[in-house]
Amino acid sequence: MSAKPLILVSNDDGITAKGIRTLVEVMSEIGEVLVVAPNSPQSGMGHAITIHSPLKLYESNVFSDLPNVQAFECSGTPADCIKLAKYHVLQVDKNRVPDLVVSGVNHGSNTSISILYSGTMSAAIEAAIEGFAAIGFSLCDYGKEADFEHIKEHIKAVALQVLKTGLPKGTALNVNFPKKSETPIKGMRICRQARARWQEIFDERTDPHGRKYLWLTGSFVNEDLGHDTDEWAISQNYISVVPCIFDLTAHHAIATLNEEWEILRA
Amino acid sequence: MSAKPLILVSNDDGITAKGIRTLVEVMSEIGEVLVVAPNSPQSGMGHAITIHSPLKLYESNVFSDLPNVQAFECSGTPADCIKLAKYHVLQVDKNRVPDLVVSGVNHGSNTSISILYSGTMSAAIEAAIEGFAAIGFSLCDYGKEADFEHIKEHIKAVALQVLKTGLPKGTALNVNFPKKSETPIKGMRICRQARARWQEIFDERTDPHGRKYLWLTGSFVNEDLGHDTDEWAISQNYISVVPCIFDLTAHHAIATLNEEWEILRA
Repeated sequence: MSAKPLILVSNDDGITAKGIRTLVEVMSEIGEVLVVAPNSPQSGMGHAITIHSPLKLYESNVFSDLPNVQAFECSGTPADCIKLAKYHVLQVDKNRVPDLVVSGVNHGSNTSISILYSGTMSAAIEAAIEGFAAIGFSLCDYGKEADFEHIKEHIKAVALQVLKTGLPKGTALNVNFPKKSETPIKGMRICRQARARWQEIFDERTDPHGRKYLWLTGSFVNEDLGHDTDEWAISQNYISVVPCIFDLTAHHAIATLNEEWEILRA
Repeated sequence: MSAKPLILVSNDDGITAKGIRTLVEVMSEIGEVLVVAPNSPQSGMGHAITIHSPLKLYESNVFSDLPNVQAFECSGTPADCIKLAKYHVLQVDKNRVPDLVVSGVNHGSNTSISILYSGTMSAAIEAAIEGFAAIGFSLCDYGKEADFEHIKEHIKAVALQVLKTGLPKGTALNVNFPKKSETPIKGMRICRQARARWQEIFDERTDPHGRKYLWLTGSFVNEDLGHDTDEWAISQNYISVVPCIFDLTAHHAIATLNEEWEILRA
């Protein structure tokens, strides 16, 4: 690592969101910062990438008040931003690789099953697959007036720890912070992803032309009572840290299918 | 299960694609079929869901030539389609749950890392989270003239096997078929997801107004030589079957972080 680490920053709420500004402010104290972030909100985009239309990329002055920051905004998704940074911006301009990739701070929780739909975490996972140490940060507060100040010291501590000790190969961290309350944050827990799901309700309405349309709404159902989960940690006012790796294989099911399936012996 | 199983079908190439027609044809021989599929191609959408705009859902006559099929087309993503089927169509019309959910047949491979970007598999994984037996089918042939006929008997065999023996809780199958060739398919293998990645290249062009834009292109790099992977099975002309579960936790990394991180003891 050179004197100043190179830190790539992205998010899914868009380059003008309060959460990414918080993250860039903290990172600019630690290293040289490259921002490649979507030019519009991408929440709920999961791991979408843009393959049927071209991408646009412009240098941005959103962070011109901060030292050590170069920023680009992109017409694509969070996963696109990471690919663009690695295979385009950093190749063309610097021929460098980032020492750390951080995404967020997401406006709202990305605990448990929410990681599946999360653009914030898709950027972090994309970066981990590319071989970089990567962290997605989320604040469990959906409010417009959400306070990000109280988490700055913790973001810095986690980033410095990862810069120091690295992460196991292919692993990204999913870090969630409790919403600000009168109770101070109790500490930090390394957790597993809770098994939970969304119970959906479609709100059916009729447009002025008599056509029906539906809004997706839902509530979160946690069916996992484990005290080693991210949901439990957040509920107890701890910061949750889940190490994530992109392997969906249900390894335990391989032997079951090999034993049960007659068609394998047909 | 009633005399005829209820089978929910979706995909990501859109309701008029050849792949979903193949799947619906086979499923209509097995049970009562409900199709809820996107009205336009959704490839590369990963696990995107539609939360910032409403959804439209219309009954469709695309499969009116087939017996036992009711079909709807939807303005959303594959994951939206599964949610709409469970929480809207099946609640309003039938108060039933599907005995099986199938997605595809995707036009192109969804082996290895491609599952991350796959709308086909996002529908299957969404269904598995909802508690249904679910299978995503993909044909490793991107050609416009791809032949789906040779895989029909195998699709039927897998669907009947899953209807008979079920799947471990929360598990979806990622089934990939080799492209048609002169060599007949050798059989079927239960596999793990290969560790591989995409090596991207951005093709930069200039539009008629002098503005630059970029096309994402890339090549698949398999760094995993295991003979128990989906990539190996397909390369040897086997059908690959990977049981998948949505838990990204890198369980092996939890102890490592607990040991290495000084900030946990600060």
